[in-house]
Order: sequence, then C-alpha cells, then structure tokens
Amino acid sequence: MEKPLKLLHASLNNRVIVELRGGVEYQGVLDGYDVPHMNLVLKNADEIVHSDKKSKHDKVIVRGDNIIYISP
Amino acid sequence: MEKPLKLLHASLNNRVIVELRGGVEYQGVLDGYDVPHMNLVLKNADEIVHSDKKSKHDKVIVRGDNIIYISP
Amino acid sequence: MEKPLKLLHASLNNRVIVELRGGVEYQGVLDGYDVPHMNLVLKNADEIVHSDKKSKHDKVIVRGDNIIYISP
Amino acid sequence: MEKPLKLLHASLNNRVIVELRGGVEYQGVLDGYDVPHMNLVLKNADEIVHSDKKSKHDKVIVRGDNIIYISP
Amino acid sequence: MEKPLKLLHASLNNRVIVELRGGVEYQGVLDGYDVPHMNLVLKNADEIVHSDKKSKHDKVIVRGDNIIYISP
Amino acid sequence: MEKPLKLLHASLNNRVIVELRGGVEYQGVLDGYDVPHMNLVLKNADEIVHSDKKSKHDKVIVRGDNIIYISP
Amino acid sequence: MEKPLKLLHASLNNRVIVELRGGVEYQGVLDGYDVPHMNLVLKNADEIVHSDKKSKHDKVIVRGDNIIYISP
Repeated sequence: MEKPLKLLHASLNNRVIVELRGGVEYQGVLDGYDVPHMNLVLKNADEIVHSDKKSKHDKVIVRGDNIIYISP
Repeated sequence: MEKPLKLLHASLNNRVIVELRGGVEYQGVLDGYDVPHMNLVLKNADEIVHSDKKSKHDKVIVRGDNIIYISP
Repeated sequence: MEKPLKLLHASLNNRVIVELRGGVEYQGVLDGYDVPHMNLVLKNADEIVHSDKKSKHDKVIVRGDNIIYISP
Repeated sequence: MEKPLKLLHASLNNRVIVELRGGVEYQGVLDGYDVPHMNLVLKNADEIVHSDKKSKHDKVIVRGDNIIYISP
Repeated sequence: MEKPLKLLHASLNNRVIVELRGGVEYQGVLDGYDVPHMNLVLKNADEIVHSDKKSKHDKVIVRGDNIIYISP
Repeated sequence: MEKPLKLLHASLNNRVIVELRGGVEYQGVLDGYDVPHMNLVLKNADEIVHSDKKSKHDKVIVRGDNIIYISP
Repeated sequence: MEKPLKLLHASLNNRVIVELRGGVEYQGVLDGYDVPHMNLVLKNADEIVHSDKKSKHDKVIVRGDNIIYISP
C-alpha cells in the first residue's frame, strides 16, 4: 500500500499535473507541499484553462482546497 | 456490519470506480488511501468525463473531498 | 425520541434510499456506516440519476458529505 | 430568549417544515435530532420539490448540513 | 468597538432582517441564537424570496451556515 | 509585515468596502469584528448588488464566511 | 523542498498575483498574511475581473478561503 502523502513526497522535483475544480489545470515541477492542507509549490508551471495554455509562472502556491487530483 | 474503511482496505489492489463531483470518474487499481480524508492513490487509472475516456495516469492522488462514491 | 444514528443502525440489512446532492439517488441494502461522517456501505445498489437507473454496484462506499437524506 | 436547540426539542412529535438547499422541502413529524449536526429524523414525511409533492417516507434521516430552516 | 455577538444579543426581541444565500430573506423578531453557529430563532417571520413574500412562520429556526447578514 | 487582523483592527471607525460572494458589496463604517470568524459589524452601511445601491442599514452583522475581501 | 508558507513569507514586499474563485484576480504587493488561514494583505492592489481592471485599492485584506493560487 502506498499512502497519498508518501506518493506526493516521492514526486518532489518531478513534473506533475494538478487538476483543480472549474476546469483549471497546472503542470509544473513539484517543489514543496504542506500537511494536512496539501497546499503545493510548483516551479515552471503552466496554467491550462479548458485545454488552453493561459499563463506561465516561475513559482506558484496552489491551495489544496481546490485540488481534485495530482498526477505524478 | 461492514464499516466503510474496512471495505476500502479490503479493496486494495483491486480495480475500483471512483465517482467525483462534476461528472468525473476514475477507474483504477486502489494502491493506497489515508484516514480520515479518504484521499486515494490509484494505479493505471482512466479518467472519464461525462462517459468519455479523457486521459490515462500511471498513478494519481485523488483528494477525498470531491469523492461521491467508491465502488470496489 | 429516536436519534438519527439509532435509526441508521436499526436500518442495517434493510433496503434504504439515499438521496445525494445533484439529483443522484442510491437504493441498496445498508451494510455499514461510520461515525461521525455517516459514510455508508450499500450492497446490491442501484444508482439512479434524474429518475433513470444508471448502474448497479455489488458494493459501494457512499461519502456522507453529499448525502441529503437516508430513507429506511 | 429561546435557544434554537430548545425550540427544536420542544418541537418533538409535532409536524415541522424543513427547507433544504436546492428548492427541496420536507414536511413531517419530528421524531429525533442530534447535536451539534442537527441531523433530523422525520416520520410520515412528504418530500416537496419546487412545490410538487414528490414522495412519501415513513421515516427519513435528513442531514443537518443542507438545512436552511426548520419551522415548527 | 461593538462585537458582532454583542450586537446580536442587543437585537433580541427586535425585528431583524436576515439575508440568506440564494436570494432568500427573513424578517422577524429575534427570539434567540446560539454560539458559535449563529443559528437563530425568529418569531412572526416573513419569508421573502426574490422580493416576493412567500410564507409566514410563527417561529422558525434559521441555520447560521446560510446567513449572509443580519440587520437589526 | 502587516497581519490581516492588525489592519482590520486599524480600520475600526473607518469606512470600508466589503466584497461578498455573489456580486454583493457593503460599504460602511467598521464598528467591530470577531476572531477567528471575521464576522463584521458595519454602521451606516450601503448594500450594493451588481453595482446598484439596494438598501441602507443603520447597523449590519456580516458573516465572515462569505467575505472575499475587505478594503479599508 | 520549499514549503508553501516559506515561499509566501519570501514573497513579502514583492508584487504577487492572487487568483480567486469566480474569475477574480488581484495583483499587489504582499504586505502580510496569517497562518493557517492564508488571509493576505495586499498594497497598491488592482482587482481584475475576467481580465478587466475593475478597481484599485491602497490596501486590501483578501480572505484565504477563496484563493486558488498565489504567484510571486
């Protein structure tokens, strides 16, 4: 069995896809997270809204509240 | 009586259907979960949006907040 | 006076109707629940979406968060 | 001053109107409740959706989360 | 400085306007409240939906969760 | 660094703009607040819905839950 | 690994983009925050609604609840 936080930790420094409520997606390198909120720090992140690349962020803090899934 | 978490535990390594709010569904092998949030780790997961297969994920962390049901 | 959890407990092994937010309904045999979340385990459950039978589940874990009512 | 829970307790065995989010209303005899969630048990309950009587329930557990008001 | 709960207490036995999410409003005499939920008891309450008087209640318990503002 | 609650406290007796979810705005003199909910008391408050002045309140208790921002 | 709150702290006195639910965005100098709510104080903030600059605020308290991401 692999616990969600263990997989999240193992994904540090890897590119992940983060899907949020409302059709917004981030793709970036996972640079950090906190517990238990699962807020994330992503580096070199693309924001994708309804499949269109909308903006680029060097770093971005994504609040865990709005996350649907994280795909390493 | 079978408690929800006992059934979830018994479903480890089996393929499950996870229905989320907003017409999104995951089908994958349950690889882990946490308590009490019911965040899940799925392997070989298909994401299905309004009955169309949208994407495949080797591994995905699904936040428990958005889960409507889990069907082993 | 009959407390909600006492009625829920008395409904074990009986067929119940579970109404969720968003026009989704489950009908199945109550096989388990937990406290205080009121997550449920249903057996032989029919999922009914806007009055149409959508799918059948041998067993399903329904998260308490989305439940509007449970009718034994 | 009359506290909400005292009025709720005084309404046991009386017919109450329970308005939920989403235009759903229950009318039934208050048979029980719990604290602090304000989950209710109603007997001989009518479910009324946008002013149309939809279904009748001998007993129903209504989750407090979705309640807007209770009118004794 | 006047704390919200102090003003609420000072409003007991006075007519108040209570605005809820979804365009629903109550006007009635504040008969009670609880802490910290801010559930209210209103007497002789009018329910007003999108500016139309919909119904009258001798007494009504309004859950604090849905309240946007209370105007003494 | 100026903490949010310190700025809120410093805004007492000043006119503030309070933006709520759903396109509703209040403009009034901040008369009080509580911690940690950030419920507010406003004096001489105008309620503005989608840019139209809707009503005036001598005093109003605004629940913190629905607040998006407070601008001193 | 860089924790979200450490990055937030490092962003003090820098211009940040704050995206809220509902298509509202703030751009301003981060002047403060609190833990664990992640309420923010922004200085010289522009409010941008669906890509149109709507208003300017010398200072604004943004509640953490509605924040989707913060981009330093």
